[in-house]
Amino acid sequence: MHPQTDIVVKIATDLWYRQISRASTLFDEYTDEQLAAEIAPGKNSGVYLLGHLTAVHDALFPLLGIGDKLYPELFDVFVKSPDKSDLPKPATADLRKYWKEVTKTLNDKIATLSFNQWMERHTSISEADFENEPQRNRLSVLLSRVAHLTEHIGQLLWIKK
Amino acid sequence: MHPQTDIVVKIATDLWYRQISRASTLFDEYTDEQLAAEIAPGKNSGVYLLGHLTAVHDALFPLLGIGDKLYPELFDVFVKSPDKSDLPKPATADLRKYWKEVTKTLNDKIATLSFNQWMERHTSISEADFENEPQRNRLSVLLSRVAHLTEHIGQLLWIKK
Repeated sequence: MHPQTDIVVKIATDLWYRQISRASTLFDEYTDEQLAAEIAPGKNSGVYLLGHLTAVHDALFPLLGIGDKLYPELFDVFVKSPDKSDLPKPATADLRKYWKEVTKTLNDKIATLSFNQWMERHTSISEADFENEPQRNRLSVLLSRVAHLTEHIGQLLWIKK
Repeated sequence: MHPQTDIVVKIATDLWYRQISRASTLFDEYTDEQLAAEIAPGKNSGVYLLGHLTAVHDALFPLLGIGDKLYPELFDVFVKSPDKSDLPKPATADLRKYWKEVTKTLNDKIATLSFNQWMERHTSISEADFENEPQRNRLSVLLSRVAHLTEHIGQLLWIKK
């Protein structure tokens, strides 16, 4: 009735959805001004974290082999470069839209994957290496990204009201 | 050769060990003075987070049904109460020792559990409820605690050097 492998998928994806929902709630609650400020002196701004998380999650499409990035231009600005780079950043209103769109599209894809599909390799490991390291699969990518996301949620929680 | 269920256990426990190791490295790097200060103005101190994470992880022994708490007295001070409570806190040197001991004992236990044991219920859900919600098992507790831990790692990373 409840195959154990389906339960594993439910646990992992529910954890992802829950943390995504927490981040979305935080982004929605904060004003553009609150997001623009450094969260702590000398640390990242909320707007950088919004762009950063959007870009990292957008990169999950090719990494999981489930599609192409929606906003590939974000990666240089928000992943390869730090907050105080000279690169021009999109308007906060646009970043809010990109976050919602990446989240919705990604969650829809994530919901379709079966346990066996989660156990398939991700695209940054070769077939040969995957034979020896079968744990480097899509599921491990998802759970690593949960950890990455919650790390930044801990910081976003500290934006002052 | 690699049963898929063993791979699931490896992914989940490796993620736990990796994040525990990151937190341990941070606690070791910071001086008592650095830990004593608020990480950001008005926010938790590092020493509170050290006690908080130790107490939450100590509570995993009874919750996972793998033993008793080593330091039950920490829960009131570091989980039920906020940083600025009037409750006396242990010395930082003692908290560092408690963190190491809880981590070592917990990790040793975690390493012994099989996939089937991870799929068993945790102790805060009844057998009757577990029949309907089989995802409320030990594995989901471990992964939730990974998310909780990384949330606070995100904050600990901001302690100034």
